[in-house]
Amino acid sequence: MTGELNALGAAEIARRIGSKQTTAVEVMSACLARVKAREETVGAFIHLDEDKALAAAEAADKAPAGGLLHGVPFAIKDIIDTADFPTGWGSPIYHGYQPPRNASCVELLMRQGAIPVGKTVSTEFAYFQPGKTANPHNPGHTPGGSSSGSAAAVADGMVPLAFGSQTAGSMIRPAAFCGVLGYKASHGGFDLQGVMGLSASLDTLGLMAREVEDLVLARAAMCGAGPAVHPAFANSAPRIGLVRGPDWSNGSAEMRDVCERAMARLAEQGAETSEIGDLSIFSNLEKSQKVVMAFETARARIFEFEHYRGQLSHHFIALMEDGLALSRRAYEEALGVRDQAQQGLSALFQEADVLLTPSAPGEAPEGLSATGDPLYNRPWTLLQVPCVSVPFGAGPRGLPLSVQLIGQMGDDDRLLAAADWVHQCLRGE
Amino acid sequence: MTGELNALGAAEIARRIGSKQTTAVEVMSACLARVKAREETVGAFIHLDEDKALAAAEAADKAPAGGLLHGVPFAIKDIIDTADFPTGWGSPIYHGYQPPRNASCVELLMRQGAIPVGKTVSTEFAYFQPGKTANPHNPGHTPGGSSSGSAAAVADGMVPLAFGSQTAGSMIRPAAFCGVLGYKASHGGFDLQGVMGLSASLDTLGLMAREVEDLVLARAAMCGAGPAVHPAFANSAPRIGLVRGPDWSNGSAEMRDVCERAMARLAEQGAETSEIGDLSIFSNLEKSQKVVMAFETARARIFEFEHYRGQLSHHFIALMEDGLALSRRAYEEALGVRDQAQQGLSALFQEADVLLTPSAPGEAPEGLSATGDPLYNRPWTLLQVPCVSVPFGAGPRGLPLSVQLIGQMGDDDRLLAAADWVHQCLRGE
Repeated sequence: MTGELNALGAAEIARRIGSKQTTAVEVMSACLARVKAREETVGAFIHLDEDKALAAAEAADKAPAGGLLHGVPFAIKDIIDTADFPTGWGSPIYHGYQPPRNASCVELLMRQGAIPVGKTVSTEFAYFQPGKTANPHNPGHTPGGSSSGSAAAVADGMVPLAFGSQTAGSMIRPAAFCGVLGYKASHGGFDLQGVMGLSASLDTLGLMAREVEDLVLARAAMCGAGPAVHPAFANSAPRIGLVRGPDWSNGSAEMRDVCERAMARLAEQGAETSEIGDLSIFSNLEKSQKVVMAFETARARIFEFEHYRGQLSHHFIALMEDGLALSRRAYEEALGVRDQAQQGLSALFQEADVLLTPSAPGEAPEGLSATGDPLYNRPWTLLQVPCVSVPFGAGPRGLPLSVQLIGQMGDDDRLLAAADWVHQCLRGE
Repeated sequence: MTGELNALGAAEIARRIGSKQTTAVEVMSACLARVKAREETVGAFIHLDEDKALAAAEAADKAPAGGLLHGVPFAIKDIIDTADFPTGWGSPIYHGYQPPRNASCVELLMRQGAIPVGKTVSTEFAYFQPGKTANPHNPGHTPGGSSSGSAAAVADGMVPLAFGSQTAGSMIRPAAFCGVLGYKASHGGFDLQGVMGLSASLDTLGLMAREVEDLVLARAAMCGAGPAVHPAFANSAPRIGLVRGPDWSNGSAEMRDVCERAMARLAEQGAETSEIGDLSIFSNLEKSQKVVMAFETARARIFEFEHYRGQLSHHFIALMEDGLALSRRAYEEALGVRDQAQQGLSALFQEADVLLTPSAPGEAPEGLSATGDPLYNRPWTLLQVPCVSVPFGAGPRGLPLSVQLIGQMGDDDRLLAAADWVHQCLRGE
């Protein structure tokens, strides 16, 4: 039995612990056993403390249950402050640095009984320079980034739930490459105290999980939303609009194929499907996201650029230099492009409950020296809307494929409800 | 000569150092002399390092000039991280805590040659529990809060420029009580990395100064805006709309009087003045601000509430408990009130370049056990618009009075241009 507990979802773990079918210690032991067996290959964690995690699980078993996530193990991307583990931001500059407090998101899960297992690998400052993590489906391939370790740990059954973050494509891309659910909240939907920031207009917290109900439960712990999947699509299928987008032809054939097969499958299952024909609002979004990200990052991380340039990767130095060279006018124009597209976008949601679009260019690329291209994520992050990556089958090299669902700004509850419906339809292929 | 240098503005200091009329050491020495003479009475600083400040000034005099703020001393509210000074957030929990890096705002000023003098007193977590600071105009009266030390230090001639922040009324109120210019930027206008946060929808960085050109210069250093006052009102006076607001009758007679006298004076000087008659969009804004602030703070500061409750003031515990008791629906309704009012507000700016409205209920209240009521600031902070408090004369007890100017969201350049025009008209009374 213990051997399977690590494969359960967070909600199921909480239910079983609540009804005394299992204990927090049994669950934690199963997760730690999986880590022990696989970590040398996967490299999901930058800091792990088995004794601390087990001690917390023992304490949870002695305490009265009641929290939404009582006894549920979770992992934390290493750009998120933790009082009990060092927080290195994926950079040698802060390697081993110990913050004095937990980020709000960490504390909010712990307050509901969840137990932190450790810190997962982030790329350097959640940008492009990769850490040690490999794709658990094939360790010769990237897990994506920047939330590399969180995606890999959840995909590999090490933990049921993990925090990540997205400024360009750092949640959805690794979720797609690793074949797990990745959820980037609406911008501003989750508090960011204690989370390293690059670009205040873009930075958003997110969660990796294997079940949509787990995302909903964690969301409830974070911002007081309902603890069960919203019943919007309990009795009727969602209306789904395909957005091929301006970069449709720049991805792989398997990417296009998985989107089209998903649309067909969902229509078979009763979804009202359509295609968004007018893509004019999406022009220039990827470019504008790059401008906003560079301009804002160049301010946000100026301390490291001024004092520790020798310890920054060439990727990060180039981003800073680009941002410092940009004019304020170029930045304001990029924000203007966003504002206009946001207005255009709301009209699309009169015809569709959610949009379906590529998560990533295809299967995870070979090699660990790069994390893939976030081109299918930048536009949506700029638009600040909530996104969920839903796995669907595998590509020609046997690696996971995925589709991305987009919801209306602030309407994360309905997006997650639709994602649950879609996930049930697509799973098992 | 040295005795007067501490009374100069930041731009004037930079000009004189640039043209070798004075040196950074002479300016810093004058500021430190003023601190030495007055700090026992005013209590503006929680941490000050004279040797470090003088050493930095010596280094500035040896370095080639060129930065926008070369050799200009500035002070930093103690909720803002500094690598060279402890950062205590106005709380015993973090008293003496040393962060590993500078907040982005600090580094961005230093990058332009400005020199940090020390950390100024903040109320506990930038909320209501006061620190030691007294009003420099009468030490039996509050300086206001939460940016108490920054307002007092600038008002008293200890520094020409200081950082503060506002979530309810923490910039505009202390600026008004101390008789200095206080500028709260458009929400999101300045990066907040390294600044303690309470409420992501409200938290905004700001600056205290004695000259509008100094605010403009610091803004240029922070976000790449132009380094000189925008010429919008160089040849024509601004159109100014009086907003009495729903709390007009809840302030003092001198508050109402100063607004009306200011409007008359500005009309005499050529401004096209009007009064906004329909105040319906302002209903419920103060109440909604309180809901948003409590709900978000209860998430943002959950770590301290869970782990250090015994070291929190009753003010702060009450805020946390209120926020945790609020439903998500109440929070979303409050955000909805804001969204609607933001739409209504843009129409008002078709008739006026800036709005004029009370900064504070009147003169600074007697006593140091409370910092006054931010009721005239909460609505504007919720609306996320830029605000400037401009001093205008004194009240019956000889303490400063002030008016508040409001600009359009994102149009800080024009607001500061109008504020400069208004400041020139009102100063000297």
